[in-house]
Amino acid sequence: MGLRCAGPTPRRWPPTVPSFRIHFLPDDQEISVNDGQTLLEAARRANVYVGAICGGEGTCGKCRLIVREGEVEGESTEFLTREEIRRGYVLACQVVPRSDLVVEVPPESRLSGYVGIGGEDSERFRDFTLRETAAPAPRLDPVVKKVFLTLPEPTIDDPTADQERLLGALARDRQTPLQMGLKISRQLPYALRKVVRQRGRVQWSWDGRVTATVGVRGPVLEVLSVEPGDTSDRNFGLALDIGTTTVVAHLVDLVRGTTREAAAKYNSQLSFGADVIGRINYARQPHGGEDLQRAIVKDIDTLIQDLEVRSQIARGDIQCIVAAGNTAMLHFLLGLEPDLIRLSPFTPAAASPPPVRAAEIGIRVNPRAILYTLPMIGSFVGGDVTAGIMASGMHRADEVSLLIDLGTNGEIVLGNRDFLVACAASAGPAFEGGSVACGMRATCGAIDTVRISPNGDRVSVSTIDGGRAVGICGTGMIDAMAQLFLAGLVDRGGRFQVDRCPARFQLSPEDDRPEFILVPPAEAENPRGIVITQADVENLVRTKGAIYAAAACLVNSVGLSFADIQHLYIAGAFGNKLDVANCVTIGLLPDLPTDRIHFIGNSSVAGAKLAMLNEKWMAEMYRIRERITYEELMVNPRYMEDFLSACFLPHTDLAQFPSVPEPASLTASQGAAPAAASVEWDDPACKRGAVL
Amino acid sequence: MGLRCAGPTPRRWPPTVPSFRIHFLPDDQEISVNDGQTLLEAARRANVYVGAICGGEGTCGKCRLIVREGEVEGESTEFLTREEIRRGYVLACQVVPRSDLVVEVPPESRLSGYVGIGGEDSERFRDFTLRETAAPAPRLDPVVKKVFLTLPEPTIDDPTADQERLLGALARDRQTPLQMGLKISRQLPYALRKVVRQRGRVQWSWDGRVTATVGVRGPVLEVLSVEPGDTSDRNFGLALDIGTTTVVAHLVDLVRGTTREAAAKYNSQLSFGADVIGRINYARQPHGGEDLQRAIVKDIDTLIQDLEVRSQIARGDIQCIVAAGNTAMLHFLLGLEPDLIRLSPFTPAAASPPPVRAAEIGIRVNPRAILYTLPMIGSFVGGDVTAGIMASGMHRADEVSLLIDLGTNGEIVLGNRDFLVACAASAGPAFEGGSVACGMRATCGAIDTVRISPNGDRVSVSTIDGGRAVGICGTGMIDAMAQLFLAGLVDRGGRFQVDRCPARFQLSPEDDRPEFILVPPAEAENPRGIVITQADVENLVRTKGAIYAAAACLVNSVGLSFADIQHLYIAGAFGNKLDVANCVTIGLLPDLPTDRIHFIGNSSVAGAKLAMLNEKWMAEMYRIRERITYEELMVNPRYMEDFLSACFLPHTDLAQFPSVPEPASLTASQGAAPAAASVEWDDPACKRGAVL
Ligand code: FES
Ligand code: FES
Repeated sequence: MGLRCAGPTPRRWPPTVPSFRIHFLPDDQEISVNDGQTLLEAARRANVYVGAICGGEGTCGKCRLIVREGEVEGESTEFLTREEIRRGYVLACQVVPRSDLVVEVPPESRLSGYVGIGGEDSERFRDFTLRETAAPAPRLDPVVKKVFLTLPEPTIDDPTADQERLLGALARDRQTPLQMGLKISRQLPYALRKVVRQRGRVQWSWDGRVTATVGVRGPVLEVLSVEPGDTSDRNFGLALDIGTTTVVAHLVDLVRGTTREAAAKYNSQLSFGADVIGRINYARQPHGGEDLQRAIVKDIDTLIQDLEVRSQIARGDIQCIVAAGNTAMLHFLLGLEPDLIRLSPFTPAAASPPPVRAAEIGIRVNPRAILYTLPMIGSFVGGDVTAGIMASGMHRADEVSLLIDLGTNGEIVLGNRDFLVACAASAGPAFEGGSVACGMRATCGAIDTVRISPNGDRVSVSTIDGGRAVGICGTGMIDAMAQLFLAGLVDRGGRFQVDRCPARFQLSPEDDRPEFILVPPAEAENPRGIVITQADVENLVRTKGAIYAAAACLVNSVGLSFADIQHLYIAGAFGNKLDVANCVTIGLLPDLPTDRIHFIGNSSVAGAKLAMLNEKWMAEMYRIRERITYEELMVNPRYMEDFLSACFLPHTDLAQFPSVPEPASLTASQGAAPAAASVEWDDPACKRGAVL
Repeated sequence: MGLRCAGPTPRRWPPTVPSFRIHFLPDDQEISVNDGQTLLEAARRANVYVGAICGGEGTCGKCRLIVREGEVEGESTEFLTREEIRRGYVLACQVVPRSDLVVEVPPESRLSGYVGIGGEDSERFRDFTLRETAAPAPRLDPVVKKVFLTLPEPTIDDPTADQERLLGALARDRQTPLQMGLKISRQLPYALRKVVRQRGRVQWSWDGRVTATVGVRGPVLEVLSVEPGDTSDRNFGLALDIGTTTVVAHLVDLVRGTTREAAAKYNSQLSFGADVIGRINYARQPHGGEDLQRAIVKDIDTLIQDLEVRSQIARGDIQCIVAAGNTAMLHFLLGLEPDLIRLSPFTPAAASPPPVRAAEIGIRVNPRAILYTLPMIGSFVGGDVTAGIMASGMHRADEVSLLIDLGTNGEIVLGNRDFLVACAASAGPAFEGGSVACGMRATCGAIDTVRISPNGDRVSVSTIDGGRAVGICGTGMIDAMAQLFLAGLVDRGGRFQVDRCPARFQLSPEDDRPEFILVPPAEAENPRGIVITQADVENLVRTKGAIYAAAACLVNSVGLSFADIQHLYIAGAFGNKLDVANCVTIGLLPDLPTDRIHFIGNSSVAGAKLAMLNEKWMAEMYRIRERITYEELMVNPRYMEDFLSACFLPHTDLAQFPSVPEPASLTASQGAAPAAASVEWDDPACKRGAVL
């Protein structure tokens, strides 16, 4: 390929900057970088995933790499121990190469899943997201539908033009005005007739059988494409939940109303920042917004590829995409300015962005397919919440319901057919990922169940895949917290009670405060072991306090109390693994009868599917958006009071939590023994997930 | 520019085809062509205009060139005399070069105007097209309007998103639903605020003063663009009349409702075929449709450039284009399949094409500007007729009116507020251009006035520009015909009466029939002189017969007679130069009192302007289209009868033409003497246009 010229050797430009080759293990990727680029930048360019939760600021300590060969230069950091530095550990964002390198990405930075979540893990997501929602199944009338028509042949008495002939037939049973793009008018004569060309002669013969694909675009129905013959049996849609952490895609058969396949992967934007604020800050950089958009579009593409292979349905048959997500994620997806989301008075660029051609933002499905983004309520209550309301059906019920989305933001909605109010708890990502010392997302190696014996000396854990523990995920953190509390290892104020079991505690190298050893280093797939720090506990208490207080405030703002709540819907990817009793024990959820508490799983993707399957339901999404009132808690004086009272386990006011047992430290004979046989943390069977 | 390699000389591919250089005079253009390409193709590629009315079929004889140096090869043709061939004349489409050539384009093939109509000629078009129409001036509410708004600053109590804030304000006094593209939602935060960027920091400060440009798109109003501050004083539109022969553009100030400038040029598609059918045939070739579209888009660009220079208004301020034209021209413009227009049952691809982004078809105005094409009634009654009805106001009147468009197709509309019927006479281009032996368009050198003394021996002519005669245009043909008839040189059956003045006749070299010498070769800018052949007379009689019969048929079909017509509107670029008495004399127009006959000039561009200036009027265009009934004359048995009766001068039934005087041959004392002093054809003063 390419021509070679004889003559002087070509010079590199600029000539003074040397470049180095970096070889990444275990992926066996190689890339050359210019002087001055960090290892994190190199990894990004080589498409090697390195956890970089703070986006390369040097403040999260998650971008750990091991330099196996070669020289690097950079500052030392408190995130690495002496021993680790001796073994070659570096923070990828803080060092630049000084020679060619061989670099290994250790498991805790890899966290698998970057190139898609394979096998079991994917099934797990499917499981979360395919479950039935509380809402009734809609009558099928998808937002993009295929209509097969047989149009009568034009005659001298009725020479109506092709375009008007088609539009007339389509308009017959419809109120919505129809629109048709020029491209379609150009193709229509060919779709309606057989054409034979011979040496400049064109022979037309009428056929009239045609399938029109029509899609809702605000107040009009647009004819998106026309095809000869009857293709009305092949019509698919993609429902997306674009989470800050995870992107979930469901392939929906719009003719039959069934989900054909589901897939999920991590949001690649994680390497630009773990949370919304980190990514908005990243977007301020030149081309930052484009990087974010490209990352999510690439993720969607990966998911579509996965769905194509598994379902044997071509992406060209996907005629629409409905995307749910929080306000920032949808702004990133559409390339809307996100900066104002984080600045008072928190005004998004758009709350109901127009439907656009999916191709316009680079998503490769049918070139005429429409991308709908679900309407957002405000900067902190996004299209995922609109979807959640829809999926729960709470906006149509007589009884009052409370919806809590345990995502990164902790959005809460209260209401029924007569009123809807929403707020965001600004909970922060205390359940998983970056702000937890050993936090990780719910994937291979993540601890998701914890049991601690009443006297605190026996600990058993299991991981999602039954493999060796790499870190702890959100469900695991809530479990651990409840168990630590019930075993008396943490007091009501959230302070470790080291005396109760000194052997399980050590001092944290970071802040010299005690930390609880969940899995010692020798037994974990992580050289630091798995610990829960005092800071983790404080974070979690703050987060659960914020959510509980926000819910209490919201319920109170309309003159109700928790007792009036007939249904409490819990949304979020925690899914059915989440233990209601543990959630109540730590005071995250109000102490309601368990039959009133419903886990609705990923209500975001469920709502997206509902909106896709019936155009009236899509319209209902917009009506929900218009009905709902957003409560800004920051300006509610009661909120801070409620929050402070909720920053205890389970609460300062124990009367609000009658069902929570006394911790073991207070009543040594009680405690929460595991339901199944308990297994010691050092029993190898436990780590393979065989028990619990 | 470019690198040169040492080494063997590069070979041309394919190596066996020699190429020749062709130098065109008087334009001094040079181009190299491969063997096998005709001189017509060479001229097209060199952007040298050569009249090629049959599109290169060898059947029009209009693509005459003079080979000054070099060798060509090709068939001989009956369109050239022996003498002409001796002098180097060739038909460009019939010969290929055999050596490098120097070639001259003679005046009769040049017909000026290809690169735009300069100076006087342009003024002439302006004059045609700026005249007042019969319709009242509309209240200003243009289809694309600029709205200046001052939006209140968002607060914590009202953090409404930017998009919804703008749409809410715009929706205030409007019923039409609003739409907004993603691009606009992307820009809006910047339009509403002042932004200061410093090293990754972004400072936003609210301004709120914004101008939104909104345009009608079918049932919705689309926000086309947003600009900071108040730009509502600068809003322009382009009204286009895309004729088969001429393209006219008016630059309209949409704020003041005035026409700022007008420009016109020939339709460059003429080199692909003189009439609609020729061009539709051309469109069947591979890329034929694209060639036609490119040609008209380039013409529009040339006109815009002209308007920009003269008005000092930038094309970026043109926010909308409204194009009128016959069905084929609008199909070519939009790239719609035109082939079905000419095939029974004459079904166009689209009758009301959707508004499109002008940029989508390559017109460079404001990138967000909308191009509206006026709705068409059928294959032979286009958007120019809808415009004409609108401009005349006949569809709103109590009295019955008849509208005759003397364009190439001869469209006729009859009606009032209660009914509207239309038909097309399929007149053919008998008034000008290709089918007339010495026909040419109304430009420099075209004879437009003819007077013949009652005894037939004295003839005076004048040309549009007062220069030497090159050919004869439509107005001139009608004049000549009436004068020949009144002087007794043509009988009622359309046969030349050679005996009345043998000196003015000669035998045609083509068909050996007599032809009338209007200007002898020595006095004309055309080596053949200017003649009117027997075939020309027969053509004209057929054409006027077709139009008259069509009008009669249409009037009759609703049970009326010409006497019931209160207003006869004559549309077409003939404008005020057309002599009503002459039109009646030859039986082209019904013999109505002259105060009922109104020349409304270019009603096509006038209608386009009306549609542009008021969105209700645009909507009215579509209602006209829906109200109107198209009469297919081809299936009306009465039409052929009426047509045969009308193929006489003025008609078989003289009672229908009481005001037409007896020809001189019958009453030697009468005749139609010129109104002003008559001047002999060989008086040099006449040819400078000083008299009449
Ligand atoms: S410390 Fe390196 S990415 Fe956060
Ligand atoms: S004869 Fe050459 S173009 Fe018509």
